[in-house]
Amino acid sequence: MRVYTFGNGTAEGSADMIDVLGGKGAGLAGMSRLGVPVPPGFTLPTDACRAFYAGGETLPDGLWEAVERGLAFVEQARDRRLGDPARPLLVSVRSGAAVSMPGMMDTILNVGLTPAAVEGLAAESGDRRFALDSHRRFLEMFAEVALGVDATVLQDVREAVRDAAGLGDAHRLPDSMLARLPDAYRAALLRHAAVEVPVDPRAQVEAALIGVFRSWNTRRALRFRRQNGIPDDLGTAVTVQAMVFGNLGAGSATGVAFTRDPNSGARRLFGEYLPEAQGEDVVSGAFTPYPLSRADARPGAPTLEDSDATAYAELTRIADLLERALGDVQDLEFTIERGTVWMLQTRAAKRSARAEVRTAVEMADEGTIDRDTALLRVDPERLTRLIHPSVDLHARPRVLARGLPASPGAVSGIAVFDPEEAVRRSAAGERVILVRVETSAEDMEGIRAAVGVLTSRGGMTSHAALVARGLGRCCVTGCADIVVNERKGQMTLRKGSAVLETGTWLTLDGGTGEVMLGEVATSPADPPAAFATLMGWADARRCLEVRANADNAAEAGRALELGADGIGLCRTEHMFLDYDRVSLVREMVFADSVATRRAVVERILPLQRKDFAALLERAGGKVIAVRLLDLPLHDVMPSQREELSDLAAQLSMPVDVLVNRARVMRATNPVMGHRGCRLGLTFPEVYEIQVRALFEAALDVGGAHQIEVVVPLVTCAEEMHRLRRRITHMAARVADERGAPPVPFTVGTMIESPRACLVADRIAEAADFFLFGANDLTSATFCIHRDDAGRYLPFYLENEVLAYDPFVRLDREGVGQLVRTAIERGRAARPGLACGLSGAQTADPDTIAFCHEVGLDYVSCAAHRVPIARLAAAQAAVRGEGSSP
Amino acid sequence: MRVYTFGNGTAEGSADMIDVLGGKGAGLAGMSRLGVPVPPGFTLPTDACRAFYAGGETLPDGLWEAVERGLAFVEQARDRRLGDPARPLLVSVRSGAAVSMPGMMDTILNVGLTPAAVEGLAAESGDRRFALDSHRRFLEMFAEVALGVDATVLQDVREAVRDAAGLGDAHRLPDSMLARLPDAYRAALLRHAAVEVPVDPRAQVEAALIGVFRSWNTRRALRFRRQNGIPDDLGTAVTVQAMVFGNLGAGSATGVAFTRDPNSGARRLFGEYLPEAQGEDVVSGAFTPYPLSRADARPGAPTLEDSDATAYAELTRIADLLERALGDVQDLEFTIERGTVWMLQTRAAKRSARAEVRTAVEMADEGTIDRDTALLRVDPERLTRLIHPSVDLHARPRVLARGLPASPGAVSGIAVFDPEEAVRRSAAGERVILVRVETSAEDMEGIRAAVGVLTSRGGMTSHAALVARGLGRCCVTGCADIVVNERKGQMTLRKGSAVLETGTWLTLDGGTGEVMLGEVATSPADPPAAFATLMGWADARRCLEVRANADNAAEAGRALELGADGIGLCRTEHMFLDYDRVSLVREMVFADSVATRRAVVERILPLQRKDFAALLERAGGKVIAVRLLDLPLHDVMPSQREELSDLAAQLSMPVDVLVNRARVMRATNPVMGHRGCRLGLTFPEVYEIQVRALFEAALDVGGAHQIEVVVPLVTCAEEMHRLRRRITHMAARVADERGAPPVPFTVGTMIESPRACLVADRIAEAADFFLFGANDLTSATFCIHRDDAGRYLPFYLENEVLAYDPFVRLDREGVGQLVRTAIERGRAARPGLACGLSGAQTADPDTIAFCHEVGLDYVSCAAHRVPIARLAAAQAAVRGEGSSP
Repeated sequence: MRVYTFGNGTAEGSADMIDVLGGKGAGLAGMSRLGVPVPPGFTLPTDACRAFYAGGETLPDGLWEAVERGLAFVEQARDRRLGDPARPLLVSVRSGAAVSMPGMMDTILNVGLTPAAVEGLAAESGDRRFALDSHRRFLEMFAEVALGVDATVLQDVREAVRDAAGLGDAHRLPDSMLARLPDAYRAALLRHAAVEVPVDPRAQVEAALIGVFRSWNTRRALRFRRQNGIPDDLGTAVTVQAMVFGNLGAGSATGVAFTRDPNSGARRLFGEYLPEAQGEDVVSGAFTPYPLSRADARPGAPTLEDSDATAYAELTRIADLLERALGDVQDLEFTIERGTVWMLQTRAAKRSARAEVRTAVEMADEGTIDRDTALLRVDPERLTRLIHPSVDLHARPRVLARGLPASPGAVSGIAVFDPEEAVRRSAAGERVILVRVETSAEDMEGIRAAVGVLTSRGGMTSHAALVARGLGRCCVTGCADIVVNERKGQMTLRKGSAVLETGTWLTLDGGTGEVMLGEVATSPADPPAAFATLMGWADARRCLEVRANADNAAEAGRALELGADGIGLCRTEHMFLDYDRVSLVREMVFADSVATRRAVVERILPLQRKDFAALLERAGGKVIAVRLLDLPLHDVMPSQREELSDLAAQLSMPVDVLVNRARVMRATNPVMGHRGCRLGLTFPEVYEIQVRALFEAALDVGGAHQIEVVVPLVTCAEEMHRLRRRITHMAARVADERGAPPVPFTVGTMIESPRACLVADRIAEAADFFLFGANDLTSATFCIHRDDAGRYLPFYLENEVLAYDPFVRLDREGVGQLVRTAIERGRAARPGLACGLSGAQTADPDTIAFCHEVGLDYVSCAAHRVPIARLAAAQAAVRGEGSSP
Repeated sequence: MRVYTFGNGTAEGSADMIDVLGGKGAGLAGMSRLGVPVPPGFTLPTDACRAFYAGGETLPDGLWEAVERGLAFVEQARDRRLGDPARPLLVSVRSGAAVSMPGMMDTILNVGLTPAAVEGLAAESGDRRFALDSHRRFLEMFAEVALGVDATVLQDVREAVRDAAGLGDAHRLPDSMLARLPDAYRAALLRHAAVEVPVDPRAQVEAALIGVFRSWNTRRALRFRRQNGIPDDLGTAVTVQAMVFGNLGAGSATGVAFTRDPNSGARRLFGEYLPEAQGEDVVSGAFTPYPLSRADARPGAPTLEDSDATAYAELTRIADLLERALGDVQDLEFTIERGTVWMLQTRAAKRSARAEVRTAVEMADEGTIDRDTALLRVDPERLTRLIHPSVDLHARPRVLARGLPASPGAVSGIAVFDPEEAVRRSAAGERVILVRVETSAEDMEGIRAAVGVLTSRGGMTSHAALVARGLGRCCVTGCADIVVNERKGQMTLRKGSAVLETGTWLTLDGGTGEVMLGEVATSPADPPAAFATLMGWADARRCLEVRANADNAAEAGRALELGADGIGLCRTEHMFLDYDRVSLVREMVFADSVATRRAVVERILPLQRKDFAALLERAGGKVIAVRLLDLPLHDVMPSQREELSDLAAQLSMPVDVLVNRARVMRATNPVMGHRGCRLGLTFPEVYEIQVRALFEAALDVGGAHQIEVVVPLVTCAEEMHRLRRRITHMAARVADERGAPPVPFTVGTMIESPRACLVADRIAEAADFFLFGANDLTSATFCIHRDDAGRYLPFYLENEVLAYDPFVRLDREGVGQLVRTAIERGRAARPGLACGLSGAQTADPDTIAFCHEVGLDYVSCAAHRVPIARLAAAQAAVRGEGSSP
């Protein structure tokens, strides 16, 4: 067993020995090696803690001898002696694990402060009250941590003394009473717990070490580790370090500093300090600290820059040195003891998304880090806050419920449960949030009228999510925490069962999925200038193309503005389900002859052509993949008797016949029903009209296009062969009719069923590309439907039956295997086969990394996720180079 | 180009050259080689036909030279010459493809009958009328087949001549008019089509060959091939053979014979003949032929055995010779020309299921074939008719619709659409068929009361199918040809839209899925004695164990009587859904606390224990696999408002709360919902009570048991680990409570999701066996649900997008790959892991063969399919030895 000393510009450990020395110990060793002034000390390694527990909570053999060596080093470095009445050495004993567990473990300050040393400290500092108060603090901490006595015991004593003196809370104890407190404490400890604070300073150190080791296993530490997935057998390191005092009168101070502004990312020393104070005073909130730099000056508050220019300069020098050496923005703790600056801690600084982007780019520009490192520095997920409006972080709203972040943004409005009411109230100037169980084609106008949409069911690709993203509306879906009663116009919170009526003000955060009560302040989108630079670097670095899902021109526009390489998936269902067309679609579905159906689709043709023309125009020659109709018939089924009557009249069909037909068509499992290319093969008119509309639109718009025609839900090669022939034929026919040269295009398929993956070689014979539909593929592979999983999937995640939600992060073990198989077999049959992946999982950086690893050519994500995917793809490329392929 | 001669005990071809010579030509070559008397002839091979078409419908180079050689052979063999006025040679020119296409192609008889030859034939036969009539027949056939003139042209001439003579239909033309017919024919052919029948006999042969080649591509032949999946490029062989005449006066006859009775299988010559007739007279139906053998004698009809003992003896000799040589029962065509027996054709005889079994066993016992061959001789599918009542084959019922053969048997009863009415009418003594869209727990008593069940939706494993099989009721499900209106008490036929009301007599055939109008005669089950022998041989030969699905003791009993090796799958849902328990299940599902739920399941415990005890007793120590509850919650959801009210009262819960809860639980895709082990993990009480009931029952019954506990719908290893621990714990606890030694058991899982296959190695760590659930696995792999596939799967099969229904035959290409993968990985992780497969596909012999090939240990099929599976498994073993593993 050994210890690792540091101080005086030397260190036996180093900054990279975090596993051994803990974060704190490694940081101190690193600083000392860099010549940064740190109070000398030594660190007991984590294996000492493990040995402590292995040995039944006793100090392991040889450890004390090592501690004695460490203490000797500190005594020499500070030219002080433990317990010395003239120049007493005081030390702090602090925990410090390899993984950050803030506030979970214990610390004891001022160890060594024996009664004799108190007098020495008083004399030396010329401040008797300081010495007495230090003693008090020591006794209280020691009693709690080293002796295990409940803090209330000594607190009661202190209050009793205060009461006896007739002092209110506002007044501090006079020195005379402070001086008597130790005796009162001593009596109380004996009376309550039959323990004493040792007067031998070495016995104090030993008891402090044991106390801090034990704090590894307090109940709250155990709970924290369980919640954060930290193993219990890591153990903590313990650092014993000479005390320095920021409260030794004028010229003394303590504070925290960031090497750059953690909010804006600006390059200047940023932080706060308190003159004549100890560290805990800064963080306690009892005092308002002063800004360090003149740039942050407040009226009436001094700055360190002004009041102690020398210390400020020294701090700036150290900050620069540490940032350069450690290659990241640092969060520093320091103490100035009578003019001498001592650093107590350094660590990578937490910062705002804004600052994260700016500092990464600027540090790369300054040459402190390379661009790859800069790319890895930014958490892709955090970009959302920069590029979309979000709830103000300082607003501290009351979060009622949490759903899926289906479409970003932050909006407030009154809850309305009926789409017609939403239209009415919105026309009357009210801001409305439409709340529904799920939405369907009937809700289209309501969604248009609303500023946001909230549903209690449905996933990231539910009707509400798709429509809201298409319209750029903020949307939270699948919010299982609420029960919506549309008929009564109210919703109930599942927890607490509060009932919220129509008209209640709500705020939605579509970036986090949070539903808040009232009108909460929001911040607009405002990315820093560095954002564009970083995205440029990401684009240069990534191998994956990033395309966006977009069902209409507006959405396509947003996607391209956010840097999409093209439109990876245009779902034409949306065009069909738009409010004014759903009745046409119903006519088509219920038509009892090919001729009737053809007549209906002919009426759809001009509408589709217009939609496609707008899209192609907006795409401006970028790739655009159009998926042919993939509509579960179920979804357009009229559910109300009146709707059925209307439709029967439209079709001149007896209601009874229609009702019978509807009954036959109603699927018990719509996902596995009559949809995708099954519809295209059995109702060939539908795809014909779509393909015609697409190629006529391309000729109408003119110019060069990159059109990909996507056939949905293929499970056997023959489906693809037949539809490919038909599509090719129809495209040629359109060119022929117009006397125009044929518009170039490719035909490929969605890979959404396990079978498609297994027979990918056969399918690839007829497909120019594969687009994996990760949602449906996950659904089928697991036999889980996202919409129905609410009763058990949360249980599975909480109880770790599953490590993560496979609809959020692609399941590498199962679904990922199928994707790999399909790519391998597909490319074996058709070398160079283009492969992409779409689905809600593309919002997850780990999934993007998977896509990179398996050699996909592109991902297609929601428009608003494009920047996140671009960065995640770049990170995957950077990380990928380090690993074997 | 060559031809293959035969006759006079020699042949250039042989019986196994079917691809080259067609069935007919190969048969003739084979017979000739065996020394059986066949009229000499030669065969043009199928490649001649292909060359004919490749060369633009002309005879290929060198073919005519070969034909001349063939003709020379025949002339010499018969000592006759083509066109010879004294001893003319007449030949038949017949098509004969490698695949049987009965009646689809053409034949011309009496080719060579020039006007001069007619006189020769008349003189030689001493029967002028015979010669004239032969000439007439020749001209009519030649005109139609070789000259392509519509048959009505000459028919009109014949009628005109007859009318001119004032003759009715009943009278034959006098010889003088018959003699003038050729001139009239000649004139009509010239007038109508400007063609002539050549007088050069070689020109006749050439034109006849071309005509018969062309008959390969007539419209009806093309349609037949399309319907039967026969490739169009096979081509037909053509056999040119010396004519022999059964109508050359006394001592001449023609007939057909079977080497054994094709109905009973009895070993004796069976067949019919007509004296003084040609082949077409026997099959035309214009004359009633006489029996060959005395054993089949009818009053007033002669038998060949009596009237020509020599010919009969020769025929018997030839029949025995052919059967022994060809190793199968033969279907023969023969002609006796003036006392000489000539064989015209031999082929394997079509026979009844009964005869198939009996002849296979008897021929093996006689040593004609070995037992392996006998096993291959019987089509497993046909056993159904022997072991279950079936519709009488002679009844010729009107088939209204066709559904899935869900539970075998044949019953008649009146259609009733309401389960309560079914109970009432059955109690009043009526025989009732319950007709429903689908059935659910509410229909239980109605199903019990009915003799048969018919549903318009649902597959082979729907509720109706499971319950009916459990009760041994005849059942047809998924009958998409009818639309059931339960409310109105009627059903509509989709084709023709006839409406059938309550009370209509129907007959169901649960073995074929046919729904017939009226009370149709049925035949009881009556397997021949040889059946048991054959099954014994099958059991000795097969490697696969054949277990049965059985949900209750009665079904288990039937399965074991049919030779099941054990119960491979006992689905406990059934026990839960039984009529008197469904309300308990609902209470369980809607219980709002663990305590309430536990109280409910405690009430279920004694019922389950009783069920299990009965099953274990009936299993008598044979293996029994009990699957824990796999109930989609959806299925027990009350759908009517009153039911909800009742349930709310039972649970002392406000109706509103219950309605809300039901809404939350209602899955949009039940198959992918909260079911299987997901239920077991989230509602642990349910499996606990089931496991307790099972092991308490085992101790109650006593004796040795082979219990397998099956965990349903596992998708990740962690599910299996947890449930295995719980099951093991509960089993130990039961033994402990009783102070009994623990009942041995194994724990395994259903493999029903693609993911389970992909992570099979991980799952096998916690599973003693895998039981593949082929229905659900197919469903997920294809994203097709059987119940919803009616709108497109029939289209897919008709249009050959899919080669077969993957719910009927296991999809080797996709699902089969997953099964292979799972077995390999599972056994790699746990050597010797037992693997079985259940699902509707086990009814298909090809699926059984697949199971054998991939090394499964067992299949578990419906009880009534056990004999079929036993035989199919034996066949797979026999066939498997020939192929590489």
